Amino acid sequence: MLTQHWDGGALRRRPDQLIVEEPLEIRLDGHLVATTMRTPGHDFELAVGLLHGDGLLAGAPVLSCRYCGTGSAVDSEFNVVSVDTGGAAPVPAARLATATTACGLCGSVAIEELRDRIAPIPVGDPWPMDVLAAVPARVHPDQGLFAATGAVHAAAAFGRAGDPILVREDIGRHNAVDKVVGRLLLDGRLPATDLGLYVSGRAGFEIVQKAWAAGFSAVVAVSAPSALAVEAARQSGMTLAGFVRGEPPVANLYAPADRSPDAAR
Amino acid sequence: MLTQHWDGGALRRRPDQLIVEEPLEIRLDGHLVATTMRTPGHDFELAVGLLHGDGLLAGAPVLSCRYCGTGSAVDSEFNVVSVDTGGAAPVPAARLATATTACGLCGSVAIEELRDRIAPIPVGDPWPMDVLAAVPARVHPDQGLFAATGAVHAAAAFGRAGDPILVREDIGRHNAVDKVVGRLLLDGRLPATDLGLYVSGRAGFEIVQKAWAAGFSAVVAVSAPSALAVEAARQSGMTLAGFVRGEPPVANLYAPADRSPDAAR
Repeated sequence: MLTQHWDGGALRRRPDQLIVEEPLEIRLDGHLVATTMRTPGHDFELAVGLLHGDGLLAGAPVLSCRYCGTGSAVDSEFNVVSVDTGGAAPVPAARLATATTACGLCGSVAIEELRDRIAPIPVGDPWPMDVLAAVPARVHPDQGLFAATGAVHAAAAFGRAGDPILVREDIGRHNAVDKVVGRLLLDGRLPATDLGLYVSGRAGFEIVQKAWAAGFSAVVAVSAPSALAVEAARQSGMTLAGFVRGEPPVANLYAPADRSPDAAR
Repeated sequence: MLTQHWDGGALRRRPDQLIVEEPLEIRLDGHLVATTMRTPGHDFELAVGLLHGDGLLAGAPVLSCRYCGTGSAVDSEFNVVSVDTGGAAPVPAARLATATTACGLCGSVAIEELRDRIAPIPVGDPWPMDVLAAVPARVHPDQGLFAATGAVHAAAAFGRAGDPILVREDIGRHNAVDKVVGRLLLDGRLPATDLGLYVSGRAGFEIVQKAWAAGFSAVVAVSAPSALAVEAARQSGMTLAGFVRGEPPVANLYAPADRSPDAAR
């Protein structure tokens, strides 16, 4: 696309790469669950990851994923994905209806709901801080869309040595996480207790919720967590590091709350 | 909250300010419309702005806004807001039901829907590039939450001279925009044809949609727009500048597509 650049004086036309953003409709066994704006690509992973993070699969096996085109509009045939469990997953309630029961809703209730739904993350060996702090620099070479457009977030799964094993980019931070979780689920790798999750931005409550549902034992965020995200992380048993940045890198450790200082390495 | 900071060697406890994130349930004439995670504060503005941006008020006057506590949980009584139009607004359809009709959904259809629903933005005097480029630095002193937590986005309305008249911060970029729009609506200042909208991050489709619905004649974003956002901005008649950053600032002009280079100032 041609855009115009202003350098303080004149406007000059130049070619520019813009990130693509298109709606994706996600269905579970034919039932509409959500419509989200996303960067096309890895759509089956996005659909499966979103359903898993919201607890809608409820352990049901994914039998197939397919695009559900209507044939009526050529450019939209890849904007509807149906995930099929053969009816093993519960019929998803309309989101509005479930939310209706939450009058009196608050953050601590949201965390209780997660505790009821998701098992605690098993306590394993502490993640060394130097391993966690090195993750952003190790993921960066794989952030190709960001390099081209400056407009996308990245999420990655990494191993105990901080090695990225899977990187996804999307205009939506949540979508990038869903794509990572969906890939791991489709590969039979959940719960991801031996893995950590990296996000290139902030860690809000919903990011921690998705990480907890997938069983990641660590989350590394380049920016800040919210207070509710920290509370959720502490309840889950995961390690949460934020503001992981700089060269050499520094980091804040938000969860667990009581890690012994000599466990830094 | 006490967190631990890792400086490359040891973990040290230190006080840390974290941004608060709590769910807000938004109702229109008693009907549940949405639940969103947000930074508490300016909740009536957020509710009104969200309803307006989604076209749900349909021109109906806002008679009152109130918190709808249940009395059952002390800490949640400010997490439900009801906006009352005395029944003048149409009953909101459950979002899932409306989305169901959109099988065959795609970005160009989403833009057509906006063109059907919202009037074009009147062509006025061009916004000088130097005025638009100076906006981020002028809003920055009012981003107090960002300075304290590093975890929030800002949105602002600014006048023809680039002067910020209203700044809102929230953990959600969309929420910050909704709060600005809601305030202007409650003040009887919509459509905001004589104003511009500033966002501290990227400009995705939904940001441009909200700006168009409010009638802003310019949008200034610190980061990148998406391709769909640019297309929507060009159709709306607004001016869209992105990657507005640096000192002295530079900018990219994405809409209109065909602005004459000598209109730079």
